[in-house]
Amino acid sequence: MPTPPSPGWTYARSGVDVGVRSRALDAFLHAVKYRSPPDHGRVVAAPGHYAGLVRIGRETIAITTDTVGTKVLLAEQLGRWEEVGEDIVGVNVNDLAAMGARPAALVDTILCGQPPDPEVFRALGRGVDRGLRAARCALLGGETAVVPDILRGLDLGGTAIGFFPRGRAPVTGRRIRPGDRILGIPANGVHANGFTLIRKLIESRGIDLSRPRPGASQPVGEELLRPTRIYTEVAEALAGRPELRGLAHISGGGVRNLVRLHPKVEFVLDAWPSPPPLFDWLRDLGGLSAREAFQTFNMGIGFAAVVGRSHLAEVRRRLARAGAPDVAEIGHVERGSGVSLPAWDLRYEGYE
Amino acid sequence: MPTPPSPGWTYARSGVDVGVRSRALDAFLHAVKYRSPPDHGRVVAAPGHYAGLVRIGRETIAITTDTVGTKVLLAEQLGRWEEVGEDIVGVNVNDLAAMGARPAALVDTILCGQPPDPEVFRALGRGVDRGLRAARCALLGGETAVVPDILRGLDLGGTAIGFFPRGRAPVTGRRIRPGDRILGIPANGVHANGFTLIRKLIESRGIDLSRPRPGASQPVGEELLRPTRIYTEVAEALAGRPELRGLAHISGGGVRNLVRLHPKVEFVLDAWPSPPPLFDWLRDLGGLSAREAFQTFNMGIGFAAVVGRSHLAEVRRRLARAGAPDVAEIGHVERGSGVSLPAWDLRYEGYE
Repeated sequence: MPTPPSPGWTYARSGVDVGVRSRALDAFLHAVKYRSPPDHGRVVAAPGHYAGLVRIGRETIAITTDTVGTKVLLAEQLGRWEEVGEDIVGVNVNDLAAMGARPAALVDTILCGQPPDPEVFRALGRGVDRGLRAARCALLGGETAVVPDILRGLDLGGTAIGFFPRGRAPVTGRRIRPGDRILGIPANGVHANGFTLIRKLIESRGIDLSRPRPGASQPVGEELLRPTRIYTEVAEALAGRPELRGLAHISGGGVRNLVRLHPKVEFVLDAWPSPPPLFDWLRDLGGLSAREAFQTFNMGIGFAAVVGRSHLAEVRRRLARAGAPDVAEIGHVERGSGVSLPAWDLRYEGYE
Repeated sequence: MPTPPSPGWTYARSGVDVGVRSRALDAFLHAVKYRSPPDHGRVVAAPGHYAGLVRIGRETIAITTDTVGTKVLLAEQLGRWEEVGEDIVGVNVNDLAAMGARPAALVDTILCGQPPDPEVFRALGRGVDRGLRAARCALLGGETAVVPDILRGLDLGGTAIGFFPRGRAPVTGRRIRPGDRILGIPANGVHANGFTLIRKLIESRGIDLSRPRPGASQPVGEELLRPTRIYTEVAEALAGRPELRGLAHISGGGVRNLVRLHPKVEFVLDAWPSPPPLFDWLRDLGGLSAREAFQTFNMGIGFAAVVGRSHLAEVRRRLARAGAPDVAEIGHVERGSGVSLPAWDLRYEGYE
């Protein structure tokens, strides 16, 4: 029998205060003053965006790094490792996708608190393999460190590099203008974000992961574990097209990720589809406000493309051919700033 | 008053069994079967070597990833973070150096078990800045994750990419032949390797980190914390020269790293300089065998260059001009396999 929701759960209360992180990060970046000389590669400014860019000879290389975060603890609880293996690839190549960069190589980092178990590593490998296949990306090395004094369980991360095929420029969102349309491509569940909060909600309500939530058929543990959808094909279908104005990976930070694309327009998400029931269920568990939910989870849309108004139909056809027929028009661009969701009476200004 | 050394300390007994790690890694790599198509970059084989290589257009990009490991726990104990910040750069760019790749960009990964402290991050940033300056490398992004349920303290890692200026090929060691000479470039202490073992030795003997070890002037904590020497300048001075046959970063695995360069020659280290007293002291603390010490620590030499016999003097002059006058001839190459240190009656066959 459900107990009444405990109001007031937030990502910060679960242990992740993005404000504190931002202040520390500012201190770090302020101390890194060095600028390298051009004969060591020319850094290309990509303000606020998903990957760093450096020009080497005639090529521009994109680089991005991310971890699977505390989703690994759910994998451990369920003894299932393929999904988070696939996430190592997904969390990184999707950030390349948001720049319109084609994935070339991934390196993984696996930190272990115990002597590594070959069976766990085999399952991780199968998941990484599946992710690489979806992103058409090579595994080019990695680091496996056994650090029992720092870690409990496993930490999974990676770094991906990508490039821009001849004639394609990085997608930065700077060409976005009022009147553009925003398309959303569905997520495959919660992906790999917000798990510190999700686990607190699950624990605080004593949820049995081996049973489906009401209305679902899959055990809730498996539903939460579903791997990050990989959007490489989506980005490859659109990158380099003149009608494409911007791409966003809706990951940590939720819809705030759109703000990264352009600081001086407003992204009006007035047609956001009803979030899948999993998200309502999560919100109900913790009395989580819509404001908190939309800035923590993807709420059903894992990737967005901003396109010129007159090219909507053509872009949808392209995406369908690229294996993404499940696209929804989720909003449009206006003069202003930030992101708004009128149906939820929400506005966000910055990215974090 | 010193107690008698406890014999039998090994890296495995301290919690890091490289054999177990190898088996897990084999299972992982065996499961990753996917090979990407050439329009996503052409993977260049670099067997057993320090970085992955992928050809993008006319450029070959090298990528490598590594962490500072449990040295962070010493940093935490001493409340000093600049050195390990510098290590984030050093552990990665030295692997690029061992391929003759010029560093272009680094991304860092900082995992936090607690809300991040701006003062700690400022010090880390200062260290990263110093490392970047030595490697002439740009910081091109990073990830800071707060994962209190996985981690205690901090974990510091990074990924670096490099390239090969026009006319320079990757240095793989495959041109090494009997008769070649091996030059060693000194290390700046233990760098960032073997710390799980070092910490066990220190703890088991109740060593006071704030006091110098016998014969030293610096407190032993600070001596151990000294940052990884960065060998970018050394590699830049030699890479692309016809007399250069191979480069090795003597990091985790110690002198076994030489085996990575060429499986079918023997690296005879018959002129290895007396290891700095710090290493003797560490060995004495734990009754550590020479075999264990030379495959765990750098034993005073952090980087090695294999060069054609007739070019020794010229190479030394080049290195002196590049800021490394402190080079020693440490051995030569013979027919055979593995690495040997005749003065210690040691032979190693594989890398791990």
